[in-house]
This record gives sequence, C-alpha cells and structure tokens, in this order.
Amino acid sequence: MELHESAFGFEIDRIVDEIEDRGCDKVGLQFPQGLKRRATTVVDTLEDRTDARFYVSGDPCYGACDLDEWLMRNTEILVHFGHSPIEDSKDVLYVKSRSDAPIEGITREATEELDASEPVCLVTTAQHSHVFEEARELLVDEGFEVVSSGGGNRLENEGQVLGCNYTSVVPEAPQVLYLGGGDFHPVGLAMDHPDKLLVVADPVNDKVHEVDGEKFIRQRYAEISRARDVDPDRWGVLLSTKIGQRREEIAQYILDNYDDTYLITMDEVTQDRLLHFDADAYVNTACPRITTDDGPRYNDPVLTRTEFEIAVGERDWDELSFDTFHGAW
Amino acid sequence: MELHESAFGFEIDRIVDEIEDRGCDKVGLQFPQGLKRRATTVVDTLEDRTDARFYVSGDPCYGACDLDEWLMRNTEILVHFGHSPIEDSKDVLYVKSRSDAPIEGITREATEELDASEPVCLVTTAQHSHVFEEARELLVDEGFEVVSSGGGNRLENEGQVLGCNYTSVVPEAPQVLYLGGGDFHPVGLAMDHPDKLLVVADPVNDKVHEVDGEKFIRQRYAEISRARDVDPDRWGVLLSTKIGQRREEIAQYILDNYDDTYLITMDEVTQDRLLHFDADAYVNTACPRITTDDGPRYNDPVLTRTEFEIAVGERDWDELSFDTFHGAW
Repeated sequence: MELHESAFGFEIDRIVDEIEDRGCDKVGLQFPQGLKRRATTVVDTLEDRTDARFYVSGDPCYGACDLDEWLMRNTEILVHFGHSPIEDSKDVLYVKSRSDAPIEGITREATEELDASEPVCLVTTAQHSHVFEEARELLVDEGFEVVSSGGGNRLENEGQVLGCNYTSVVPEAPQVLYLGGGDFHPVGLAMDHPDKLLVVADPVNDKVHEVDGEKFIRQRYAEISRARDVDPDRWGVLLSTKIGQRREEIAQYILDNYDDTYLITMDEVTQDRLLHFDADAYVNTACPRITTDDGPRYNDPVLTRTEFEIAVGERDWDELSFDTFHGAW
Repeated sequence: MELHESAFGFEIDRIVDEIEDRGCDKVGLQFPQGLKRRATTVVDTLEDRTDARFYVSGDPCYGACDLDEWLMRNTEILVHFGHSPIEDSKDVLYVKSRSDAPIEGITREATEELDASEPVCLVTTAQHSHVFEEARELLVDEGFEVVSSGGGNRLENEGQVLGCNYTSVVPEAPQVLYLGGGDFHPVGLAMDHPDKLLVVADPVNDKVHEVDGEKFIRQRYAEISRARDVDPDRWGVLLSTKIGQRREEIAQYILDNYDDTYLITMDEVTQDRLLHFDADAYVNTACPRITTDDGPRYNDPVLTRTEFEIAVGERDWDELSFDTFHGAW
C-alpha cells in the first residue's frame, strides 16, 4: 500500500474503486469506537473523489460481529473499517487498519521470556496480520520452533485472534506469543488458556510483558458463587439483536430446558439496561467479553451458558471454560 | 376494564385473545423504561394463559415513536405497552397503561389558578385520555368554557399531547390546563406555547402548579449562541434510525444545502456517542426533546433544524420555535 492511497492506513483507493465500479449513490461508513474521530477526514477524502453521499454510523461498534444492519439495509454498500470479516458479504467492504509499528525489536525482546526448547504458538490481530510471517521468521531466526493455526470459523487469517475466539492457539504448544497492542486480547487468551505461558509483544506501546489468567478465573468462580442462590424463576436470558452476536440456539436451549427463565432481547448489553428489569441474574448469550469483562461490575450476576449450568447445579465446577464464539451468521 | 383482566392496568384479556386469534408462537413485548419492572409478571401471566414464547425488548423505549423494529421483524406480533399509536399497524398491538388516580379534586383545585372569564384549552396524555371527558365536564361545572382539539398527525385522542407534538393546544385559548403527571410534558408545553398561562393538574402526585417557559427559551438562545462560532464544515447532522424518529427529509435538506456537513446515523442519541466524533456541533433531526432536554448538558452544541439555520445566519432570531414532529412513518 502506497502512502498516497492511505488516510490513516485505510485503503482509500480501494474504497473509491468499489464505489465507482458499483455506481453507489449511498454509502455507509462504520468505524470502531477508537477510529470514529477519523470519520470526518475520511468523508472529506471520499467526497472529493466520488459523487456518493456518506452515512456514518454513530452507534457503538466493537468488532466485525457488530455490523450496522440499518446501514446495510439502507445504503448500497457498507464500508466497515478496522476489522477483518467474520463472514464475507457482497454488501460489506471490509477495510483493515494496518498498524505500521515496527515489530523486529519487540519480537526479539519477547523471546527472552520464552523457552527456546519448546514450541511457541504465534497469534496476532487483524491490525498486525500483514506482519505475521515477518514475526514467524524472526522467531525462527532466534531458534524457535513456531506453530500456528488458521483457527476455526470467524477467523480470516493464520494465527488471528478475536475477543470471542482464541481457537487459533495450538493446543499442544505450552507457550503463546501474542503480537499486538492493548490488554483486551491478552486477557481473553489468559482466560481461554490459563495453563500456557503467555507473553505479549506489544509493538504499539513498545513493551513486553507476561499475563497471568488466574485473577480472571477466580473472578468467574466468584460470579458463579454469587448466582448460586438465585431462585430458578428469577433468571433472564439475554439474546443480542446484533448480527454477529445473536446466539439464538443457546438462548432457545436454556428457555426450553429452564421453563421459568425470561428472554430479553437487546442491542447493546449494559448495566443501565438490565437495571430496569426485576430479574435477579442473567445468562448472557451475546458477546462473551461483556460477561467476563463488564459483568463483574453489574449489580446482578451475569454468566455464560456453561457458568449458568454450574450455578444451577447442572454441571460440575471443573467444567468451567471460556465462552468461545464459533459461528458467524 | 374489570380488575380481573388487568395486571397493573394492562388489558391482559385483550392480549391473550389476539395471541390466540392469530395463533402466534413468538410474541414481542415492549415496555417504556418506567414499566419494564413489570415485564416478568406480565410474562408469567401470559405464559399461564397461552402457549407462545415471549421476547421482551431490553432496549430503551421512550414512546410509540420508538417501536422495537427487530422484534417487529422477528416475532409475529409486537405488544407495545404504555403508549397510544402514532400510526396503526397490524403487526403492533398497543396496550395503554391507564392511570386510576382520581381527578375530580385536583381538577377543581386547578381551576383556582385559571381565569374563568377566558376559554381554557384542556390537554392530557394517553394515561389519562379515558378521563378526558370527565375532566371537561368538571371544568364546565366550574363555569369554564373548555376548548380542545384532536391535534394533528401522531395523536390518537382528543386533547392528547406527545413530547414532540403539542398541536392539540388551541391557538386562540390564552390558557391551558394540562391533566397529567411529571414535568416532561409541562416543559414541552411551556416551550411550544410560552405566551399562554399553563396550569398543571397532576393527579398522580396530587399537586397543582404553574409552569414558566422562559427558562427553557433562554436556554435555547444560549445554545444557539454557543454554536454561532462553529465553522460551517464542522457540523454533524444526526439522523435517527428509530422508526418514528427518522426525519430523513430534514437531514437531506441540510446536507443538500450545507455541503460540508456530515451525516451521522444512530439509534440512541447520547453524549457518549457524540464524544467519539470530532465535529464541533450537531443538528439533531431525531426526537426534539433530546435537543432541548439533554442537549444543553452535552460538550458540543446540539440544535434543532431551525436553531441551526439561526446559528448559521440563515434565519432571524425571532423565528425560533419549538421543533414539533408531525409525520409518522
């Protein structure tokens, strides 16, 4: 990608070409929260080069699971920035935001925390997937055996992770190197793979650190305990209306097997919205990270489906596991 | 309505009959924020009497303008509680929440604040529309000439007001008696009709008071002033995706006439959502009460279409008026 075709790392030329090839008059633009400030500049750039009208989504967006369905129905193409596709659609143009942070120094530094006598599993995010092979070669150069996987559904690239899906971690590898920024994915990795050594090489903040999943696992035990005394007929079952967070089969399963639960649908799941209801605990079938990351701060316990089954005595405590999201839509 | 067919004043028998007559398996239930706590009891009651599965909307609901479109598409009937229809639809069953607060004492008390030598316009909300004629007769009995109107679009009943529509106020009447609870409608009435004497007979809180619109009008002047220095190419135009708050023709008008504005679509309009964007001011074409009631607390100015035109010098200050919502969908 050359500099002139990029506004903040977005592939403007590709967007312009798609708009012109399809002859679009109405174009939706959707940015994750952290990139919304760039929307006005992107609109200015695209308006200079096309005759389309641009509709910018102002609703929160937390991933490719979170496509703006109103814009999908009401524009000719939705340009979704910053995430790789969970499922391809001709109505959605996915535009990555590629990080240009250099990775060599931080990757070599991270190897000092790893055990060179054991295989290391390499994982990263969509922002860094274009340097995945470079990172693999650096690790090999440092004497490591590198393993990786394409993961399951929802994952576009080799070694990619999503907040709801860490299935690209190779089970046999005792250690994982995560190449990427922020704490969100390291926390998810630690919850899903608490027995592995987890090292973070963060090229965005230029730091290396280890993550211990024990704190998060203990928090899940505490939440399940908090919900064990809830009356069986005081549970709400949350079903997301978002296209990529709508696990209706899980919600239906719970409703079919636990007659007295209540089905509550919502777009965003927030503490504010639950406070209006008089249920005493909730099973969240939407994004699992709402449960694990936000749930512990809610007034009432919010559990995953497996955690709910532990709380009501249907499963044993040792069946506790991270709530991985497999399907698309 | 007899007591046995009501759960908290809702017409349960009518809902059961509709579900059975139509043979519905999937039924959506939508309650305004203040009635959501009753959802679990209503579900229990309806599950005892039908075989349907009930989907309760957890998203915020602020009026009949705010129908849950996901439930409309994904269930066989949406039962919408607490509001009267803005527009009838065979897919929506509107169920009022009728207040059983007695009105005689409070209505007679309110007449002491009114001028018996002038006509009084009587208005109320959907919660009290079943006692509108009783209130009219009480006023006549006290020696008043009572005037009223069916209003325009969006209004189902004689003398009804909505947060966005006070067109049932008869222009010639110098005084208005509002029969109803809360401050929301008195504030709207005062903003739309600042020159009339406005007396509130509140049977819910059993109090009579007058409302002065001056404070709210001054606040609108302040907001327009705050926006006058905003650069013409730094305005965002907010278009609601809610079925009854989607004034696309106004948004299109502004975009067509002010080339450098940005179109931003959203479901809920909140300060949090606007903070992610780098525009400096917003024209809100969604619910006018977001502009007048919430807007003054936002970081950036939020104006109605007319206020925007005053701010950019297209209209005179004396054209300032309340942003009434006329159409349905």
